[in-house]
Amino acid sequence: MKIALTATHGDVSGGAIIFRGSASDAFALASQLGYDGVELHLRRPSQISRDEVKKLADTHGLGIPTLGTGMAATLEGLTFSDPDPEIRRRAVTRIKEHIGLAAHLDSAVTIGSINGRLGNDPEKRRLRREGALDCLRECSKAAAEAGVTILLEPLNRYECDYLNTQEEGLRVIREIGVPSLKLLADTFHMNIEEANITASLRTVGPELRHVHLADTNRQAPGYGHLDVRGVLRVLREIGYEGYLSFEVLPLPTFRQAAEDAIHTVREILSKL
Amino acid sequence: MKIALTATHGDVSGGAIIFRGSASDAFALASQLGYDGVELHLRRPSQISRDEVKKLADTHGLGIPTLGTGMAATLEGLTFSDPDPEIRRRAVTRIKEHIGLAAHLDSAVTIGSINGRLGNDPEKRRLRREGALDCLRECSKAAAEAGVTILLEPLNRYECDYLNTQEEGLRVIREIGVPSLKLLADTFHMNIEEANITASLRTVGPELRHVHLADTNRQAPGYGHLDVRGVLRVLREIGYEGYLSFEVLPLPTFRQAAEDAIHTVREILSKL
Repeated sequence: MKIALTATHGDVSGGAIIFRGSASDAFALASQLGYDGVELHLRRPSQISRDEVKKLADTHGLGIPTLGTGMAATLEGLTFSDPDPEIRRRAVTRIKEHIGLAAHLDSAVTIGSINGRLGNDPEKRRLRREGALDCLRECSKAAAEAGVTILLEPLNRYECDYLNTQEEGLRVIREIGVPSLKLLADTFHMNIEEANITASLRTVGPELRHVHLADTNRQAPGYGHLDVRGVLRVLREIGYEGYLSFEVLPLPTFRQAAEDAIHTVREILSKL
Repeated sequence: MKIALTATHGDVSGGAIIFRGSASDAFALASQLGYDGVELHLRRPSQISRDEVKKLADTHGLGIPTLGTGMAATLEGLTFSDPDPEIRRRAVTRIKEHIGLAAHLDSAVTIGSINGRLGNDPEKRRLRREGALDCLRECSKAAAEAGVTILLEPLNRYECDYLNTQEEGLRVIREIGVPSLKLLADTFHMNIEEANITASLRTVGPELRHVHLADTNRQAPGYGHLDVRGVLRVLREIGYEGYLSFEVLPLPTFRQAAEDAIHTVREILSKL
């Protein structure tokens, strides 16, 4: 298993991302602390120079496992489930831009917050879910053509009202039926939604391509009460060979979180 | 430890309350299933006939450990931290009405969602926190005069932005300094906020007067991955003699949740 730091631009406050600052500082920190890659969270792909980032990754010998796209939803309100077709079109366009960048960086694209919410009205929920899945299908097809993987991330009930568990994610993947669409498991969300975290990981293992290893309080592994060892043992048992990235709060400081997260995980992995 | 069913009026949909319907049906169900009490959730105390409810409780030999008050916040937007003093005044008035009912029913009053949110602006947060604590102090004093306990309930980060952990609750209780103000521990919220659930229970034990025993997915104990046995063992060790109530979703059905919750807990308690 490989390990990735999460990073984003310095102008974004809040959120479960360890490093905020320039891409060059992010890659330098990841390299210095022994990370294998950097998971980049971007509001717009045009915020970065794709060639500069590609060069940084190559220079440091680091991968970019996936591009986080949630800011388009949280900062701009672009979601796949919006009742307004123009908003949905803009959300799809944004994700296609991410797919273009991901193809250049040999990265995947995460679809989490941009799935949006369906609301409470049963009839509208049905229609909005159809609209959302149409967007997801269109993006998955575009990703397939570009050789890029889409990582569908179920979120907890407070952040999404129709795609919360790994099994729900798996059902959507089967419904869409495009091979580029795979699953992302985030242990912070799973702690709230899954009756049994490790059993869920075993169930969805064949479709799992990325893991956000966050503790129960959304801090670095070891800061909460997640059975980190149990999760890593199951991931090894099911032959998971992707990245573990730390989509966690920068607490107590971003540096401490970055250091403790990789230290804790490497220590456990070395003894499994 | 005593065990309480949660119940509310039939016209409220959603929410983590097992039974929706008339008070007489709620008490009959609780009695039939071997509960010791009914935790009533009310939008307004005037929604029920206090004498009828008192008589129902006496007839069935059941207690009413506390009155849930969150609907004033979730349905009417009344909170202690609202910047508008008129809203705060109405929130305090509503809680004082609950205190009057609680005195009649030998019940406590829960203060959870009505604490509200402080928002993101640091200066405004400070002022709004002061306003909220003033409301809490006023209600605590009124409760003390009526011989009623106020149960302060920390909520997870998605439901409240300044009172999330048991320790934060304890600090507020000390800041207010009125003996009628005690603590409520809800294991669903604790699963998200506490680094160590049982250690937190030990820390706040002396101030703890009520427990919402909900599993990690907010279903009945046994439906998620909460270490129910570990929680109950610690509660017994610290000499907790209050109620365990099930502020949980009515899933798979309200009846099944009501039956399974008490069965699971009685079974574990009998073997501790």
